[in-house]
Amino acid sequence: MSGTRTETDAFGPVEVPNERYYGAQTFRSLSNFKINQPADRMPEPIIKAFGVLKKAAAAVNITYGLDEKIGNAIQQAAQEIIDGQGKISPDDFPLVVWQTGSGTQSNMNANEVISNRAIEILGGKLGTKSPVHPNDHVNMSASSNDTFPTVMHISAVLEINQRLLPALKSLHKVFVTKSQEFDRIIKIGRTHLQDATPLTLGQEFSGYATQLEFGIARIESTLPRLSLLAQGGTAVGTGLNTKIGFDIKVAEEVSKITGHPFKTAPNKFEALAAHDAIVEASGALNTLAASLTKIANDIRFLGSGPRCGLGELNLPENEPGSSIMPGKVNPTQCEAMTMVCAQVMGNHVAVTIAGASGHFELNVFKPVMAKNLLHSIRLLADAMTSFEDHCISGVQANEERISKLLTESLMLVTCLNSKIGYDMASKVAKNAHKKGLTLKESCLELQALTEEEFNTLVRPELMISPH
Amino acid sequence: MSGTRTETDAFGPVEVPNERYYGAQTFRSLSNFKINQPADRMPEPIIKAFGVLKKAAAAVNITYGLDEKIGNAIQQAAQEIIDGQGKISPDDFPLVVWQTGSGTQSNMNANEVISNRAIEILGGKLGTKSPVHPNDHVNMSASSNDTFPTVMHISAVLEINQRLLPALKSLHKVFVTKSQEFDRIIKIGRTHLQDATPLTLGQEFSGYATQLEFGIARIESTLPRLSLLAQGGTAVGTGLNTKIGFDIKVAEEVSKITGHPFKTAPNKFEALAAHDAIVEASGALNTLAASLTKIANDIRFLGSGPRCGLGELNLPENEPGSSIMPGKVNPTQCEAMTMVCAQVMGNHVAVTIAGASGHFELNVFKPVMAKNLLHSIRLLADAMTSFEDHCISGVQANEERISKLLTESLMLVTCLNSKIGYDMASKVAKNAHKKGLTLKESCLELQALTEEEFNTLVRPELMISPH
Amino acid sequence: MSGTRTETDAFGPVEVPNERYYGAQTFRSLSNFKINQPADRMPEPIIKAFGVLKKAAAAVNITYGLDEKIGNAIQQAAQEIIDGQGKISPDDFPLVVWQTGSGTQSNMNANEVISNRAIEILGGKLGTKSPVHPNDHVNMSASSNDTFPTVMHISAVLEINQRLLPALKSLHKVFVTKSQEFDRIIKIGRTHLQDATPLTLGQEFSGYATQLEFGIARIESTLPRLSLLAQGGTAVGTGLNTKIGFDIKVAEEVSKITGHPFKTAPNKFEALAAHDAIVEASGALNTLAASLTKIANDIRFLGSGPRCGLGELNLPENEPGSSIMPGKVNPTQCEAMTMVCAQVMGNHVAVTIAGASGHFELNVFKPVMAKNLLHSIRLLADAMTSFEDHCISGVQANEERISKLLTESLMLVTCLNSKIGYDMASKVAKNAHKKGLTLKESCLELQALTEEEFNTLVRPELMISPH
Amino acid sequence: MSGTRTETDAFGPVEVPNERYYGAQTFRSLSNFKINQPADRMPEPIIKAFGVLKKAAAAVNITYGLDEKIGNAIQQAAQEIIDGQGKISPDDFPLVVWQTGSGTQSNMNANEVISNRAIEILGGKLGTKSPVHPNDHVNMSASSNDTFPTVMHISAVLEINQRLLPALKSLHKVFVTKSQEFDRIIKIGRTHLQDATPLTLGQEFSGYATQLEFGIARIESTLPRLSLLAQGGTAVGTGLNTKIGFDIKVAEEVSKITGHPFKTAPNKFEALAAHDAIVEASGALNTLAASLTKIANDIRFLGSGPRCGLGELNLPENEPGSSIMPGKVNPTQCEAMTMVCAQVMGNHVAVTIAGASGHFELNVFKPVMAKNLLHSIRLLADAMTSFEDHCISGVQANEERISKLLTESLMLVTCLNSKIGYDMASKVAKNAHKKGLTLKESCLELQALTEEEFNTLVRPELMISPH
Repeated sequence: MSGTRTETDAFGPVEVPNERYYGAQTFRSLSNFKINQPADRMPEPIIKAFGVLKKAAAAVNITYGLDEKIGNAIQQAAQEIIDGQGKISPDDFPLVVWQTGSGTQSNMNANEVISNRAIEILGGKLGTKSPVHPNDHVNMSASSNDTFPTVMHISAVLEINQRLLPALKSLHKVFVTKSQEFDRIIKIGRTHLQDATPLTLGQEFSGYATQLEFGIARIESTLPRLSLLAQGGTAVGTGLNTKIGFDIKVAEEVSKITGHPFKTAPNKFEALAAHDAIVEASGALNTLAASLTKIANDIRFLGSGPRCGLGELNLPENEPGSSIMPGKVNPTQCEAMTMVCAQVMGNHVAVTIAGASGHFELNVFKPVMAKNLLHSIRLLADAMTSFEDHCISGVQANEERISKLLTESLMLVTCLNSKIGYDMASKVAKNAHKKGLTLKESCLELQALTEEEFNTLVRPELMISPH
Repeated sequence: MSGTRTETDAFGPVEVPNERYYGAQTFRSLSNFKINQPADRMPEPIIKAFGVLKKAAAAVNITYGLDEKIGNAIQQAAQEIIDGQGKISPDDFPLVVWQTGSGTQSNMNANEVISNRAIEILGGKLGTKSPVHPNDHVNMSASSNDTFPTVMHISAVLEINQRLLPALKSLHKVFVTKSQEFDRIIKIGRTHLQDATPLTLGQEFSGYATQLEFGIARIESTLPRLSLLAQGGTAVGTGLNTKIGFDIKVAEEVSKITGHPFKTAPNKFEALAAHDAIVEASGALNTLAASLTKIANDIRFLGSGPRCGLGELNLPENEPGSSIMPGKVNPTQCEAMTMVCAQVMGNHVAVTIAGASGHFELNVFKPVMAKNLLHSIRLLADAMTSFEDHCISGVQANEERISKLLTESLMLVTCLNSKIGYDMASKVAKNAHKKGLTLKESCLELQALTEEEFNTLVRPELMISPH
Repeated sequence: MSGTRTETDAFGPVEVPNERYYGAQTFRSLSNFKINQPADRMPEPIIKAFGVLKKAAAAVNITYGLDEKIGNAIQQAAQEIIDGQGKISPDDFPLVVWQTGSGTQSNMNANEVISNRAIEILGGKLGTKSPVHPNDHVNMSASSNDTFPTVMHISAVLEINQRLLPALKSLHKVFVTKSQEFDRIIKIGRTHLQDATPLTLGQEFSGYATQLEFGIARIESTLPRLSLLAQGGTAVGTGLNTKIGFDIKVAEEVSKITGHPFKTAPNKFEALAAHDAIVEASGALNTLAASLTKIANDIRFLGSGPRCGLGELNLPENEPGSSIMPGKVNPTQCEAMTMVCAQVMGNHVAVTIAGASGHFELNVFKPVMAKNLLHSIRLLADAMTSFEDHCISGVQANEERISKLLTESLMLVTCLNSKIGYDMASKVAKNAHKKGLTLKESCLELQALTEEEFNTLVRPELMISPH
Repeated sequence: MSGTRTETDAFGPVEVPNERYYGAQTFRSLSNFKINQPADRMPEPIIKAFGVLKKAAAAVNITYGLDEKIGNAIQQAAQEIIDGQGKISPDDFPLVVWQTGSGTQSNMNANEVISNRAIEILGGKLGTKSPVHPNDHVNMSASSNDTFPTVMHISAVLEINQRLLPALKSLHKVFVTKSQEFDRIIKIGRTHLQDATPLTLGQEFSGYATQLEFGIARIESTLPRLSLLAQGGTAVGTGLNTKIGFDIKVAEEVSKITGHPFKTAPNKFEALAAHDAIVEASGALNTLAASLTKIANDIRFLGSGPRCGLGELNLPENEPGSSIMPGKVNPTQCEAMTMVCAQVMGNHVAVTIAGASGHFELNVFKPVMAKNLLHSIRLLADAMTSFEDHCISGVQANEERISKLLTESLMLVTCLNSKIGYDMASKVAKNAHKKGLTLKESCLELQALTEEEFNTLVRPELMISPH
């Protein structure tokens, strides 16, 4: 398989490595765009979505007259891309996102790989474009300008549904469970970082659970617009050179292949020239990142210590912290999570700028938008799973510490108002603060209450709800 | 009314100007937070929302035993704030957003102003806190910690419904109308800024209309979470010191007063500690800003010229451009719009960072979040109205120029493929390009077609849809 | 002074309020750009910079032949704007930033106000443009396109030098002082929020001081490019319609008036078409905001408590926190500061987007760039002063608490390695952790050391430097 | 080499692939942080900087008593990492950036790889930690907390000096050359996208050159702070467990190895707890991205066409655009460049948020900061080189088109003022505008001038400078 073969495009012939399926346009892009190769290759979900789309298009094109043998070979090759197995390798898609802003070269990459693999399937010779032509057959009825936004949407919807939402729902569930588990543990509240009236640890965790529950709704609310496909708009949105009905059929076929309900975009001009749906989806991820930052920060502060922090939570120890220092558990999962969230917020700004920068019939920031959205989805999904598995599932309440802090705090003084009056209650609190006493000690010292009375009156469990 | 009176708080007495209704805590905040006073005062919609909330709370508190006379006076004072008329002036709310991060001081400002005005209504003496006490009566059953997030949501929902959505829907409608008006004007398409296949100007404008239509849906999709009110959570979310049912009744009363359906937040811990709903709403505005940037950029480029630009649109001339230069119409409305959009994108980052930065039971970035969200809403609403009134409504197609460009372009050559074959068509195009001819001139020169044949074949109206 | 007078521009006559100095173009802008009026008026430093520039230009124009009487009247009127006193009021500059993106209308506003005031000074009739014409005399040798970027730079340099750097240097000094004051207080270190080896509180504060020291250098490093003035480039950068040497003389005159060394921009095309210097300066502020966020967060966490937080610092109490709860001091200055920093980071994104969006010979996002940069400067300056006055100057170490935490921590165990060996030291630590003992208690229990030996060995003061 | 060996850490033994040099902590991190593996691996410049630092530290440690044989083996292994050759492979550094926020695990990864390789060099057995121990020898006198910020700075300085600045300086030079090449080509200016007074194409390009020239200064102005190294601060900045002078010597050694002047940070507390220098450097890149966006946008708009755009520049054609459409050259390099710039702006926000989020003695967002800064450096460097090689170097002026537009424009009318008076000049312009005539045609029609007079008077070359 070593050595090269000749592939050609409108610019002429080039020598391409024999072991690769791609052709001349891919090869040319590689040398024209030496920008952070290979690290910033087009994301894998985009490649897979090309598999889905090209398979769907071939199926539809057969109904419009594409030779069935050719159509079937295209579908088989496309399926190999979807499966990520078979003879096509990731190295057949070597292009980086920093290329033509329409993603044309990646579309051609897909066309070239699929046509060559289909040629191979049909017993032909690679590079001959016969019997399967990358443009005439694989790209039939399509343009890069409608193909790339279509794979952007397919990949985003699939990644959200298959990766992000499952991870988010699972993490949400664990927070609900933990909220119930911690239901009866009453702890000091903190506002402005200062001691405040008590709540249960379960209530605190219920807030996190609610953030995630709303996060699910937020992300799902973007799907109606993300599920609209540009395919059928061809070069400028008019659908020139495609057939009436092609757009609807492709959307149906993509739905069938993926199991997710896609629809053809009602306005193809918008679908090519603007990618507001990507900006919108990125906005939902940005909100989720804000939620997760808050949660991860709380968890690591509540787990701070072991002696000189808040120490209310014990986090699982996943790796050596300090060899000699017992109990020093670095909140590394929280750190990874908050770093991921900072990245997602940055990615969102890149997506926003790119989304605003289209001109006339085409937005030419497509690859950078796809890259950042898919990166954010993947990061959040993976980080939530890691956070769940290696942190939240194993979080334990340090009940002794929680109880100690609650008892030491002066916030329970308000329980005494009704019995000893505001003025005496205030005196008790001030005396305790001045001398470093507990409320009970101060009460006894000032003979405001007996110990029995104190124990009867000061009941934090009465302070955690309205009456 | 000149001179001062003594007002007191827990820190002691201060001298407050007689002509102001506010009390000691407001006065103290003014001297503790000399940060861009008075430019960055708490936004007016927040002040009005305090009016709504305090009125609603008084009504509900009466049902829980608040003296009716006091409750009514509070409601009357609150109504004056809502109306923006009567004796209470904007200068009674002098605090800037750069204050306590819970908005406590603005809540106390509202309490102080309302109690003093209610005292006045009831014939009492300002500063005596009798018969209407700012804390005991105006703030009854409430805490700053649940009050401020409540007014954040009330103000955002009202501003979105009363200001943003009407402006957006109106602009959308104008784009739909323009799209129909330009329905039959065929023009050159542009992708990568390069000449592409044709479309109608109406189709181009339909893309803008669709962007705005989706924008409406995007903004509306944030309302379910923005319509949830924190009131009833009090200090840490538990509802301590409030009554069972208070939260639900307040939400109902706010709905009644405003005519918009608010609900009590199902989880008050989330409602105090996180403001993801604000981040989410800001994200929807950010997406709208991306849409409007694209649209305004297109409009100004299409209107560029008069001689050396694209010149396809004539924009209304609203102010003197160049005194001597006829036809030089600066696209000032587009410039204002794109500046507004840049601001909204920046505001969104501020909101995101602030939203992510809460700790434990309280997010203490409330004022900056409210300020930026309300600023973005107001800017977009006003800018869209201005853009509609002074630009889009009066945009006219320069049909002569549009037609000239279309005729000059070489993109229509694809019409010839079927008749003269790809090779000859290509030759015609290349000859035209080389010699600067039109397609027709090139055809005739190369004797590829007669003029009559050319006119019959080259029909752009067949290139604007699938077949 | 009530009633109106007729003012005219190329569009015809308009009726302008008698009590205002502005003319027709200002009036027209007010009705064409009803976008968040009056809240978003052009920032005051821009108005003052117009005063500086118009005064300087008049002085230079006299040397090129401007009638001295007219030139002097212009200078007198301009000086009134600089002084912010006299007959010209802020309401004479009513335009918002959301206007023509070149700031043309604000330039005309300045021309109109100055010419009318100069007419008045010379005994003429307002609105006649005689003997002082807004364009021919006040705007002589200038264009809005070079004028507005010039005032952007003048205002930024003045605000940085007169407002930001003094506040920053003062805050830096207080941190240096505090660092020395806390020099001998040894405290537990915290990494990953977990207990770590000790350092002095003075060392901790020296880190903050260094951040600010570098911040000064960062901001100063932007001044060379911010001190370059566009004036003399006129409409497109060529200097058409101005005189050779005008640019250099204006820069000299501005330097004389302001006392700061400005220079004429070596390339006027860059100076009109790009505002990278504004983006750069905003970047320096963004870095300072990151520094201040870190510092303010540390301060409020170290001051958290009074019982259930870290409690190592006592922050000044500036306003009532909780009436009944002694010692609960909300870190409100930290909250205002971190909100300000979030705003500055958002403003920076707005500036960046606007700065990247120029086209050809002119960036038309000038007002939004100026607004955000000046807003950030003002906010940071005011917030640092407030932070210094109301927080840092009065911060006190809670030495008792600091000492208690240090003693309780297990991090000092490393002192024992050399004496009792790593294994026994580790055993001591683990025993202490398990049973909740101090290191000393654990040592004694395990008979690893006598109390005397322990006291001799465990000396945190040996752990705060290399050896 | 297949199969596994046992490696151990404080948590116990794990089985590590025989063909890898890394040990237990690396292995553990891989399974604890399955977050976008392997795409988001720690950037290569960080790995190389570890090579530099570990080599330098070994050299210095020898002077403090490290066994010379061990020290030499460490240096040899480290040199292999620097060289990127030899037996150590990129797969020996498999960790992603989403790990412990101090970068501890990557530091341990480096320690493990180097110790095992050094063991191998010395004839020992991998996994035995003998005779070269990852902690005791490779990490001697160091902590992850000072090591990782040190490699952040080393890698940033090297990448800036070796990659970014050369690419930027080269691109700057090409713009200077082009500016000279286009020195005499007079063209229409454009402000507000509208026709404006003329300038030379060379002047226009000189603006771009100046932007880049200032960009060089901006980036260089960050180097003083970026060249400060944290090494020697150990865990919390105090330098505990290291030797006096170690910090200075390491900085000298790193300078010697790299050829760049590094210094030890004057304050190690700042160097560990804050990474403002990274935020600052990212800000300089952000400004450069704004510059390059402006430039690339101008280039593609000036190259728009071939028939229906501005068409003043011919861009090199690097890949097939349209097969049938001659002259349609998609500005793909501009598209890649502007996408890169959007990414850099997004990365900057991630860096800013991360930089602001440190707590106490340690910022734990180190890896995400390093990743984004290095990504931005690499992207800008590669994109500038690509832009230069495949676009700017080959840009040609379309002089025919430029001249045609200039002649057609009405902006030259101002030349006539002095001769025929403002009123007649204005009449000529309006007549030309109304009837679509050139200025000359209008002049002749109105008998304002003879053709000869016109040709004498209308001389654009007199409009491109002050007089």
